[in-house]
This record gives sequence, C-alpha cells and structure tokens, in this order.
Amino acid sequence: MSYLVCAQKLLASRDHIFPQFATHNARTLASIDVMAGENADYEFQCLHGMGRPLYDQIVGKNKLNRVCRIYAPVGHHEDLLAYLVRRLLENGANTSFVNRITDESQPIEDLVRDPLSRARELSSKAHPHIPLPVDLYGKDRKNSRGVNLTDHHTLHDLHQKISPLLECSYDSRPLVPEALCRQPEKLVRSPMNHHHVIGQQIDADEHDCQKAVENATTAFVEWDQKGINYRAALLRRFGEALESAMPAFIALAIIEAGKTIADAVAEVREAVDFCYYYADQAEKHLAPIILPGPTGESNQLVLHGRGPFLCISPWNFPLAIFTGQVVAALVAGNTVIAKPAEATSLIATKAVRLMHTVGFPEKVIQLLPGRGSLIGHVLASDERIKGIMFTGSTQVAKTIQRTIAARDGEIIPLIAETGGQNIMIVDSSALPEQVVADVVDSAFGSAGQRCSALRVLYLQEDVADKIITMLMGAMKELRVGDPCHIATDVGPVIHAAAQAGLLAHIERMKQEATLLYEVSVPDDHASRGTFVPPTAFELENIQQLTEEQFGPILHILRFKESDLEKIIEEINSTGYGLTFGAHSRISQMIDTLCKKVRVGNVYINRNMIGAVVGVQPFGGEGLSGTGPKAGGPHYLPRLCAEKTISINTTATGGNATLLSLPED
Amino acid sequence: MSYLVCAQKLLASRDHIFPQFATHNARTLASIDVMAGENADYEFQCLHGMGRPLYDQIVGKNKLNRVCRIYAPVGHHEDLLAYLVRRLLENGANTSFVNRITDESQPIEDLVRDPLSRARELSSKAHPHIPLPVDLYGKDRKNSRGVNLTDHHTLHDLHQKISPLLECSYDSRPLVPEALCRQPEKLVRSPMNHHHVIGQQIDADEHDCQKAVENATTAFVEWDQKGINYRAALLRRFGEALESAMPAFIALAIIEAGKTIADAVAEVREAVDFCYYYADQAEKHLAPIILPGPTGESNQLVLHGRGPFLCISPWNFPLAIFTGQVVAALVAGNTVIAKPAEATSLIATKAVRLMHTVGFPEKVIQLLPGRGSLIGHVLASDERIKGIMFTGSTQVAKTIQRTIAARDGEIIPLIAETGGQNIMIVDSSALPEQVVADVVDSAFGSAGQRCSALRVLYLQEDVADKIITMLMGAMKELRVGDPCHIATDVGPVIHAAAQAGLLAHIERMKQEATLLYEVSVPDDHASRGTFVPPTAFELENIQQLTEEQFGPILHILRFKESDLEKIIEEINSTGYGLTFGAHSRISQMIDTLCKKVRVGNVYINRNMIGAVVGVQPFGGEGLSGTGPKAGGPHYLPRLCAEKTISINTTATGGNATLLSLPED
Repeated sequence: MSYLVCAQKLLASRDHIFPQFATHNARTLASIDVMAGENADYEFQCLHGMGRPLYDQIVGKNKLNRVCRIYAPVGHHEDLLAYLVRRLLENGANTSFVNRITDESQPIEDLVRDPLSRARELSSKAHPHIPLPVDLYGKDRKNSRGVNLTDHHTLHDLHQKISPLLECSYDSRPLVPEALCRQPEKLVRSPMNHHHVIGQQIDADEHDCQKAVENATTAFVEWDQKGINYRAALLRRFGEALESAMPAFIALAIIEAGKTIADAVAEVREAVDFCYYYADQAEKHLAPIILPGPTGESNQLVLHGRGPFLCISPWNFPLAIFTGQVVAALVAGNTVIAKPAEATSLIATKAVRLMHTVGFPEKVIQLLPGRGSLIGHVLASDERIKGIMFTGSTQVAKTIQRTIAARDGEIIPLIAETGGQNIMIVDSSALPEQVVADVVDSAFGSAGQRCSALRVLYLQEDVADKIITMLMGAMKELRVGDPCHIATDVGPVIHAAAQAGLLAHIERMKQEATLLYEVSVPDDHASRGTFVPPTAFELENIQQLTEEQFGPILHILRFKESDLEKIIEEINSTGYGLTFGAHSRISQMIDTLCKKVRVGNVYINRNMIGAVVGVQPFGGEGLSGTGPKAGGPHYLPRLCAEKTISINTTATGGNATLLSLPED
Repeated sequence: MSYLVCAQKLLASRDHIFPQFATHNARTLASIDVMAGENADYEFQCLHGMGRPLYDQIVGKNKLNRVCRIYAPVGHHEDLLAYLVRRLLENGANTSFVNRITDESQPIEDLVRDPLSRARELSSKAHPHIPLPVDLYGKDRKNSRGVNLTDHHTLHDLHQKISPLLECSYDSRPLVPEALCRQPEKLVRSPMNHHHVIGQQIDADEHDCQKAVENATTAFVEWDQKGINYRAALLRRFGEALESAMPAFIALAIIEAGKTIADAVAEVREAVDFCYYYADQAEKHLAPIILPGPTGESNQLVLHGRGPFLCISPWNFPLAIFTGQVVAALVAGNTVIAKPAEATSLIATKAVRLMHTVGFPEKVIQLLPGRGSLIGHVLASDERIKGIMFTGSTQVAKTIQRTIAARDGEIIPLIAETGGQNIMIVDSSALPEQVVADVVDSAFGSAGQRCSALRVLYLQEDVADKIITMLMGAMKELRVGDPCHIATDVGPVIHAAAQAGLLAHIERMKQEATLLYEVSVPDDHASRGTFVPPTAFELENIQQLTEEQFGPILHILRFKESDLEKIIEEINSTGYGLTFGAHSRISQMIDTLCKKVRVGNVYINRNMIGAVVGVQPFGGEGLSGTGPKAGGPHYLPRLCAEKTISINTTATGGNATLLSLPED
C-alpha cells in the first residue's frame, strides 16, 4: 500500500520526475498502469532473469503497450552483497507475491486482493506484533516517552516550551536538612556563552558534609524497612515527574551542560529509563528468595540496604548518570548523599528537589554540590559511609579506593565507572556509507564528551582511502554552534580547562600526525563559548596516543588484514576496556572480535554510543571500571547486603508440612 | 503401622516393661487387644475429655475387660504449649482417625482397614512426596552423599576404610608447573597428638609466587574461552571424585585439622556441595542473557572471567571453604592460585592433585602453601592478579585491602569473609531442652572453631537459672578427646598459639566473670594435643568481651524483656554481623529479631552452625565480610566481568525479523 501511495505521488509529479517502477507484483503493476492513465511518461523495470512472464504482458501493442527496461546489477561483491541479501530476504518472505504465486493452493482472488480494503478490515492499524514504543520492554517496564524531533509540530511545540526556560535563573545549593543557611557565593555561566549567567551556586562546606552523613545515618533504618514495593513505586513516580517536567530539564541540559536538543532529550529519557528499570529490577531481584531445603525448615534469602551511600556523578550525563546512581542506591534500601559534578550542579539540584516533591524524604536523598576534592575526601574517609558509586576519571577512582582503604572499619563496595580508549575496527567488507555515519555519530556526537565515544578508528588499508575521503565529506557538513538550534550537530565542550586540554592535543597532533580535517567553528561562537572543532588525524601508530582525549577528536590508523591479531592484542593491552565498535559483514570476523576484545560494550555495524538502560547495560573492565554494569541485572544486588533466615518450623510442636502431605 | 510394630515389641517384653497405650484409633486399640492375648499386664490410656465413646468399650466385664487410665496434662503454658500444638496438628490432619470418624461419607471398611495390607499395595515404599536425600534440591543439583553415622554397619565400614589412612604420611608442596623443585623442609604434626608426624611440607618461596602468576596469566584466555558448560562439567566430575575419595579426605580432616568424624564427613560433603551448586549456578546465571530491544538489533549480556584470582582459605574448613572459593572462581572463567592455611596444607595439596586428575589444567589451578605474610603480600601486590577471595581475620582482610589499593592499575574485587561476635537470644517462651541442645552444638561443636559459632548467649532472666542448670548438666556429658572416636564430642584446637590464646582468655574470665562449668580434658590427651576445655562463663555486661574468641568458650548474659531493644542495638553496634540465633515461640518476637538484627545469617529455634550450600548462603556484613554470600545466588556474578554485545542485524541487507512477522 505504501508503494502504491508513493507511485501515485510520483505519477502526479511527472512534470518534474520520470518514474521507474520495478515490481514483481502483478496487481501493483496493474494498479500503476491504471493510475498512470494515458500519459506514457514512465517506465517499468524488470530484473534480468526474474519475473519475465509478468513483464511479457507489458511491451507491445496488444499488451499494455508500455516501456520496460531489463536491468542487471553489475559490480564487485562488496557493492552487490547487501543488495543480494535483501533480495533473497524479500523474495523468500512468505508474504511476497513471487512466493505466493507458485503456491497452487492460493486462490487468485487472495493474490490480487486490494491492499487498501485489507487494511480497512484490520481491527488495529498498528501491527499487532510490533509493540508501540512505550511497550518495547514488555508489560513490566514502561519505556520512557520520546520526542519526535523530525516532526515540525512537535519541534515547534518543544521550542515554545523551552524558550522561556532557557532564560530563567537557576540555583544550586546543599540540600541537607538542618544544615546552616548561607548566601549564594558564585554565578554559574553557560559553556555556550560565557556572558549568559544561568544561575547561582552555594558550595557545600565541611559542616554540611558532617550534617549530611549524620542525617543519612539516622534516616537509614526506617528507609530500609519501607520495603521494595514502596520504594519501587516512588522511583516510578519520580520517572513520571521527570517526564512531565521534561522541558525544564531539557533547557537545563542545554544551557548548563551545552547539550544539543537531541542529546538533551536523550538525557532526560535515560534518567526516566533508570527509574522504571531499577523499579522493575528491584521487584524482580531484590524480593526474598525461597531456598530449597529439608522439610521442617524454612530458608530464605533477604536483600536489604547497606547504609548511607555516596554517589559521585560526572558532568557529561548530569541528569542521567546522576539519576541512575541515586535511584539504584535508594531502591536497594540505602540512603544517599549525592555529589554532582561541579560543572552541572543546577540540574542536579532541580532533580533532587523534584525527588523530595514526589515523596523521597529529605534525609534519605541529600545533595552536596561543590568541590570534589573537599567533599569526596571528607565523605569517603567517614566510616559511616557504607558504599560509594563513582563515575569519572580512573585517577580519581584510584584516590577514592585508597581513601576508603586507609580508614578503619569495614570494607565497603566501591563501584567505579571510569575512562576508556575506545576503538573501532572497520574491515574491507563493511558498507562505507554506514561506517561514515556511525563514525561521525560516535566520534563527534555530544562533542565527543561521552565515555563511550570513539577515539581511535582502525581502517583496513584496502578501503582506508575511500572511507577517509567520504568521512572528510561528512565532516564538512557538521555544524558547530548554539546547541539550542535543532540544526546544530556539535555544541561546546564543558569548560575552559577541558577546551584548553583538547586544543593543546590538537596542536600536538598537528605536529606529530597528519591532519585530515578540522571543522570550522563560527567566530561568534568561538569568542563566547568553549568550543573545540571536530578534528580528525591520521596516525602512524597507536603509541602516539598516551591518554584519553575527552572531546571531538578522532584518530585514524590503517591496518593490514594479517595484523588483526596484533591489533586485538594492542587493544587489550591498553588496560582500558570500555567500548569497542566494528564494521564488517563477515560473520567469522564479528565472532572473533566479540570473543577476543576485552571491553564492556561491543557494538557491531552500528554507532558505539547511546547505550540504552536495560538494553545495553553499560560499563567497562580493567582500568575502565569495576562493574557491575549500570542499567544491567547485576547492579542492584551489589548495592545490598544479604541476610539468610533459617527457621526450624517444627519448634512449635511438629512438622505441619509432613502431616498435611497427600499420601500419593 | 509403626505404632503396631512398637506395640508388638512392648507387649513381647512385658517381663520387663508395663506397656501403656494411648490411642484414639479404634482399629489400633482392637489390634492391641488381640496382640496382648490373655495376659492383662498392660493398660490403655484416655485423654480426659477426648475419645470417651471409644474407651467406654474397654472397662468392665461385658466390654474388653481391660484397665484404662484417664489422664490430663497439668502444668504452666511453657510446658504445655508445644504438647497442645502437636495435638492440634495431629488431630487436625486429614489422615487422623478422629478426623475421619466424623466424616459420614467415609465407609467404615476404609476407616478400619489393615495398614499392613495398605502398605503392601503401595507401588513405592518411599513416600512419593518426600524426596530421597540425593534429590533434595531438585533435578538440577545433586545433593552430596552422606554417611549414616548412627548405623553400626556403616560406621564399622568407615572405620575399616579410614584406619590405615590415619597412619599414612602425606605431603604438601607448591603445585606450580615449571617451578624449581626443592626438598621437603619441615614435618607436619597432628594437633591431636604432637608425637604423630603426619606428613612433610615444602613452603612456596617468592620464585614460586612469580612463576605461578605468570602461569595463571598465560593460561587465562584459553580457560576463559572453554565456556560455562565445559567448566561446570569439570566441577561435577571433581565433586564425584571427592565423594569417591571421601575416606581419605575424612582421614586428613581428622589428623591434620583435628575434626571429629561427624565434622569430617560434613567437611567433605560441603566441598562436594560447592562443586554441584556452583556448576548448576554457572549454567543458570552465567549463560548469555538476551536483552529486549528494538527490532533489527540483537542485544545480549555475556559474562566471562576476569583473570588470575588469588584464593586464601582458612584452616577451620580446610577442604570445604578451600574448594568453595576455588571452584567458584574457576567455573566463572578465572584461573586460580590457591593459598591454603599454613596449618592445613596437606589436605589442600591432596585436593588440588585430585583436581588435576579429573582434568583441570595444571596452570589453571595452582597451589602455594606457606607463609601468608610472604605469599599474600607478593601476590596481592601483583597487578596481574585480577581478584582476591579471602576467608580469615578482619585484620588480615584490611591489610589485603590496603595492599591492593596501594598498587597501580585497575580496582579489583576483594571478597572477604571475616570474623564475628555471634550472639543468641533466648526468651522465656523457648523450649529449654531444645535451647540447651542447640547451645551445646553451636558453642562447643567443632571445638568452637567455626566462624558461625555461638559466643554470647543472652537468656531472659525468668528462665536463666533453669536453662543454665540444664546446660551445665549437658556440658557434663561432653567428651573431649581423640576425634577418631565416634564417641568424642570435642577434639583439639588447631595449634599451640590458638590454644594459648584461648587458655589465657579462660584465665582472664575466671578473674573477671563467673565460671559456670569447665569440661575436663583427660590427662593423656591434654599432654599430647592442643586441647581447650569447653567452658561457660556468666558475664555482667557485653563490654567485658573485647574480641572474638575462636574456641569452645561460651559467655552468658541475663536480660530483662524490657531491655530487648537495647540488646538489639548492642548487637548491631559491635560492627560485626555474621550469625545470630534466637529461641522463642512468639512469632512477633521472631519477626522483630529477623528484621532488626543486622547480620548475615539468622537461625531461629535451631542451632546456628552448619550452613548448607545453597540452603543457607553464608557470609556476614560490616566487619564480618564484604559479601556476596558463599553458596548463594549472587556469588558467581561477582567473579565475572560483563560484556554487552549489540549487533545491528539489518546491516547485511534488511530486517529479516520484520519480513517474517506474521500479519496477525
């Protein structure tokens, strides 16, 4: 039916277009003949060797008397492979005309039945086997609500809502009951425009830290005993509140973190997904587990909170990772002291206030914005903190590990998600168009400020020139600028220090490697915000890179097919192991890479960013993180203590189970 | 039928016994009347107020002409409660005579049917709803094979098998391929008799440590890629091999660790259970997990090994905990370097050799017996070690934590299971006989050398005197001595240092507390082995105890009912949280304790030792351990790294799933 509608539009535009129709469906062909009328400005096409009996009815006066082109695809296997596979899939489908026409039992009326009348008869216009987006994860977990940014009305509506919110003034402060009040100390400016003051901030001091730990300790037992279902319901309520307040959080993600609109929408959705996912996981995996055992004894395993948790989150996902850490720790029964990144405290303050609004007690989730070196040290040293969740640099994770080892008392969990040196390998069988689109997304999307972002691209030498040329073409189309505009692809980096480091790396690379392309940053933006041009270099060898560059800088290396094992070894020996991408249409190649490359997240024939909660559980190994993976099934149990309860049920007078056992 | 068989035996022994029969079953009563014949030396009994119509048929010439005693239980609720409940359960059971006789629909022939003929008709003599011991945990996991020590034939057979093995000479040495060979350096003596040399030992040196890490690193990738099913099968094979070699391991547990026969049997069974349990768990929880997601994409979560693990095990479960750590790390895909306790290296050496025999490669599981301070430090400092499992003292765990924090590189998992200060609370509703039996087991069993053993008993003051008196009576019956004899209840402690510490504590307590009872140690044993007398003290307050005493010493405190909340707080504020026991027949009391006491393992109305793999997952919180619990469902995932693999399945030409979707 879609084909027919498109055909109709094409035929109606024959003053501009010469339509060509290649179909093996007799009814479709007949419909086109009727729709086209007497105007012969179009042609049919027939694949050489296929559907000849049908096309025999077209050419000639006593037939339909239309033109038909016989065509045959010509080219090398790399060009034709995908075409061939798609053709096989289509023709092999049970529903295809060419398949059904050979089936003698099919009545001809069915075969040529009007698709429009069939569509009208359907009880539901949506396909019953294709779930609506909200139902993508089944009955137990709602998918977060999306925003269709390709729809003009939706986009206009969103702009209307966020425009005033972009101009508001926000604030960040310690959210610690019974702490002393103070006046705001500093102004917060937007990374996309340093003249734009977006809010003011009060940093937490040592007194706030002490008070917060005291509160979190006091509040713990009651919170822990509220039970899984109570807390899971609160998570869902917070998720729904975030969805309702989406425009405000999108606005803050744009002006405080410099996110593009698409990234800002994804940011809020991820936070919502964490709420719904961990609520569902808690109900499934933290409920008491009945254990098998001898008769006369009941045995169960109960999970409960550990105590006050410290959650230290990064600026690159200032709402999503922040929310993920916090709600996971909370639903498991812990109280939480959240330390947001210094650069993104406004959005964190807003999130925690919203949590209080939906019913999380104020001592159960507290916020300590301010300097990491002070707050992190004071809290990590405190024996009352029973667990730490950290996302940030490998080096800071190490400092936290040493701080908690130095204190006396129990050994507490430290869940660290840290840096990476993320690599993509592209072999000669890959589809170059797809490679280029995915490389641009992976390396330059979010200004390269994702833990998962692509840093080093290995191209098989046979296809390197071609792909580099196409990539440079694609980079020419990238627009750097104001993230408020939907047309902007790349926004600013987070702050001047990050910018300076990245620009210095670009300068160094210009000396030591081959510059392939550097996207230009419009002058008005460059002067007002902390922008870094998306840049690509070709390197001689991987040793030229010493550390992760957390921005839109791509490094390209060529490799020989015979060096593949060596490259896998190089990747594994970096010590990092976060994300890895590969493009190949050879399944043995894919299997080898999936098996041998030691990283947390492997992406095949797609971009390597944007892990979805519960779909691509996220986190690395080695220097990239301790595990368990965020948004995965092993996360929540790690935040709990376990208690086994074994009860002799016969102690009150006998074994009721045995007495009531049926005799056969 | 059992009742009738017993009645028959009693009636046959009327020259020594005057049998008394209390039954409400008319057929049973009639059977006894027939079996007893003319000899009137027995009586029937009838509970006052019950079954009167039946007993009306007994007394008097024109009846059965037998004696019938009417009885009524007299006493306080604490004496009668259990009796009453059991009576209710029995009478309430569908199968009971008194229940069925009121059912008019039951034909009288059924009611008085011969139980022997019914038993003959059963297709299986075993009850179909009561599983055989081997099937206790269902189809997926075999229970370990037990030894019925109450059966004379079995016991005799076991003695025959182990006697020669007790006299053998064993050896312990580094099991490290390609390490240098050395001559044995020291003799190993039995803790039960220091004149008895049971083997000789070579300690590992630094060279052995380096070589072992090198081997474990080299062997890792291949071992990890063998797959879950391959490794699970090896675990099961090792479990079966341990069962086959049970006599040898029992003998070693007795002579090297001073275990009693019952403890030695339990030791081997626990090791076997770990093999079967983790094999099953690995197949269930470490297999790839398919994740939901959009069409056109395949997402899965794969678990795999982390690398070389160091497993440091204690002497108190020299085979069980040793095996549990090692096989868990192995089945998850890690290679293992095992460091057994210095005091119990012979049994560990034998176990690892057996592992090599069943097919574990020699570089995959290596053994480094020797000094913990040397081996532990060298290995924990080595960046190639990717995980540590430790069971031992809280203090050594802390040292390990600091060692791994000090080294560079990744943050690795440390699973520590450490000390406790285990408490039992007994309220006035508890059944004293049961309390005393469980206290003796929990405090003095295994010479108190269990992590889970009872150290502090809180008795509600109302029942304290009575229970203490009964406990002293029970302690008088305890036999300390040679663990080879089945009559021995308590064997030696592990070595002279442990003995000295415990004896010093007993001396201090004799000054500072009230000695209730001290079991005597026969002189011949005292002179040859490291024995400590089981001893009980009454304390004024819990502060008189500063640290865990790892031996057969029980401390008793009295408490007022109104102080319960305070005691719970005291328990929670020790910082430890391993095991906790309670005896009470008040369900609200039980609920409160289960909920509020923060420990890993809670035992109600039973002893508080002998956690069974998969039934009572074991491990504490706070100073007692990091979790996850050994023998529980969260253990294996902690030993793995996680990898998400996300594949765009449409890249090869189209979305085959959508094309093959049924239309309705």
